[in-house]
Amino acid sequence: MNLRIPGPTPCPEEVLAAMTKQMVDHRGPEFKDVLLRVTERLKTFFQTKNDVVTLTAAGTGGLEAAIVNFLSPGERVLAVSIGVFGDRFAKIAETYGASVTRLRFEDGSAADPERIAAALADDPSISAVTVTHNETSTGVTNDLAAIAKVVKAADKLILVDAVSSLSAIDLPVDALELDVVVSGSQKGWMVPPGLSFISVSPRGWEANAKATMPRFYLDVREAKKSLDKGQTPWTPAVSIFYALDVALDMMLAEGMANIFERHRRIAQRTREGVKEMGLKPLVRDERYASNTVTAVWAPEGVEVKALRAALRERNVVVAGGQGALDGKIFRIGHLGYVTDADIEETLSVLHDVLPKVGYHAAAATA
Amino acid sequence: MNLRIPGPTPCPEEVLAAMTKQMVDHRGPEFKDVLLRVTERLKTFFQTKNDVVTLTAAGTGGLEAAIVNFLSPGERVLAVSIGVFGDRFAKIAETYGASVTRLRFEDGSAADPERIAAALADDPSISAVTVTHNETSTGVTNDLAAIAKVVKAADKLILVDAVSSLSAIDLPVDALELDVVVSGSQKGWMVPPGLSFISVSPRGWEANAKATMPRFYLDVREAKKSLDKGQTPWTPAVSIFYALDVALDMMLAEGMANIFERHRRIAQRTREGVKEMGLKPLVRDERYASNTVTAVWAPEGVEVKALRAALRERNVVVAGGQGALDGKIFRIGHLGYVTDADIEETLSVLHDVLPKVGYHAAAATA
Repeated sequence: MNLRIPGPTPCPEEVLAAMTKQMVDHRGPEFKDVLLRVTERLKTFFQTKNDVVTLTAAGTGGLEAAIVNFLSPGERVLAVSIGVFGDRFAKIAETYGASVTRLRFEDGSAADPERIAAALADDPSISAVTVTHNETSTGVTNDLAAIAKVVKAADKLILVDAVSSLSAIDLPVDALELDVVVSGSQKGWMVPPGLSFISVSPRGWEANAKATMPRFYLDVREAKKSLDKGQTPWTPAVSIFYALDVALDMMLAEGMANIFERHRRIAQRTREGVKEMGLKPLVRDERYASNTVTAVWAPEGVEVKALRAALRERNVVVAGGQGALDGKIFRIGHLGYVTDADIEETLSVLHDVLPKVGYHAAAATA
Repeated sequence: MNLRIPGPTPCPEEVLAAMTKQMVDHRGPEFKDVLLRVTERLKTFFQTKNDVVTLTAAGTGGLEAAIVNFLSPGERVLAVSIGVFGDRFAKIAETYGASVTRLRFEDGSAADPERIAAALADDPSISAVTVTHNETSTGVTNDLAAIAKVVKAADKLILVDAVSSLSAIDLPVDALELDVVVSGSQKGWMVPPGLSFISVSPRGWEANAKATMPRFYLDVREAKKSLDKGQTPWTPAVSIFYALDVALDMMLAEGMANIFERHRRIAQRTREGVKEMGLKPLVRDERYASNTVTAVWAPEGVEVKALRAALRERNVVVAGGQGALDGKIFRIGHLGYVTDADIEETLSVLHDVLPKVGYHAAAATA
């Protein structure tokens, strides 16, 4: 099966095989070795000297950790959103009592740093900004460098959802002075779902010391305290750590720059390929097109459900739209363990099945 | 390695091999099949017609879910505790603002149902009771039938930590009218850590409808809503579901009654074995001795650390004590994928190494 959804992504055979390793004492020397080795290499990919802790949770658990460990009820937060996952980040903050101002950009658009700067200037009581690096629901990557710059100029805490970007798209956490950054194992890391990674800057830890939102399972301070002993506070998903350990080997062997370039090349080919068929990516300005997922408008007369079913019959699995985009778009994931051949096959099968689900290319390109 | 800690427990080869299966769309038909099949069979082992939801989290995440989904800040809770995990359950409730009265029994003792009844009679404002079925830190199993009876007679909600008992020790959830019951994949289920299972009774759902503690990632109502569509709200730990699917096959093939009997027999042999060497189990009244873990006092003159190291050199890994029992006891796990031979080897190696770490049997038995 050519699994072209934006996570869980396919895993290399070596990564899956690593999970056949038997359990060990999660408070013993074998797991300590794995945990410390994995943590050091996660820092390499986060491009950070900050602490990085790993939680046994999906990306959404990581997002929750990025909120509850650093904020207090009543605290004023600017939630920058360009889609479903930006909205989710905002909703988590609200759920735990933050006073959230939403700055929502249209689906398909990137966030405008100037409007963020203006929103921060408008309301000096805002102390933190949540922002999505790569919006999985729309296939748009924010200009995080520009956004971080205005947030830091305003001296605010910045909390970043990098679940579907980090490891696949260049994201220099320290250079951008990002305080809290979250990623998830099932995306660019080529690992099954179940682990979430969170980097915390010194300023993040300062915020943590004052933050009063309740937390227990997702407590990053407990995670850091245990990490210093080579442990996790609660029982970790040992098998997924084994998988991650092998995936990081492979990623280091390929090299960060090569990984970024592979994602850039494959994403560009994906966009070109769908445009050649007369289809239209959701992203409004190609400078912000995501290198990990391409969202495509369903053409006139084509039902997304029928299209996805037809692709699936040919062993190509793509994702539908989420929220308001359900039934309007489909999404092609190209992150992690993805090759040029995977995308050529995807495009070729898409080209084959489109006419069978009501697509008339001539009409669309006219 | 003979991994004799009370979780993560060893996994059968077939269970580990299941995790080499490639990722699938977690919102597609293949995962739906797995999720629904697993859920039905979890209900069999929970002996319940209640809803059972599965969260991607360790057991502690499951305990947090059992608190935050069913209680409100300020709500009066009686936390019955016989050890570290009972204390943890109480602490989670306090963290989220419950007003907790602790009823703590001495380490090694079971909870006394009469004292629970008295505590509930004393304070009619208490609306819920938290209780541990099997206390992993002391090797004591509460008489949950008797406890549930007094809690139900007082018409209170009962929230049960069955992380290290369910599937290995008989626990008829419906017959005991248990409202919320939590278990974890890495214990009796023979599956790697990463999944937590929670059953919710109709009364539990009523409580949920009124409960105002904040929750997002661990929201069981969202989990139930998604389950009705054959999905999970957030990306699930797909590989661990594959493992669970195979483990449940094996458990059904063995049969529930046989599994319970195997655990009873092996636990009894463990206690007899350590007593034959002159060692003393922590449990004060053998009627409450756990069938999944045996805690043993370190004999005079023997350092737990040295004993564990000596055992490990012979490939037998046991756990130490937690909290106040650190350095005072060691614990032998015998749950899930455990055979009579595993325990005979453990006892034989223990017998060999004890004299080498300062144990003089004659003195101890005198």
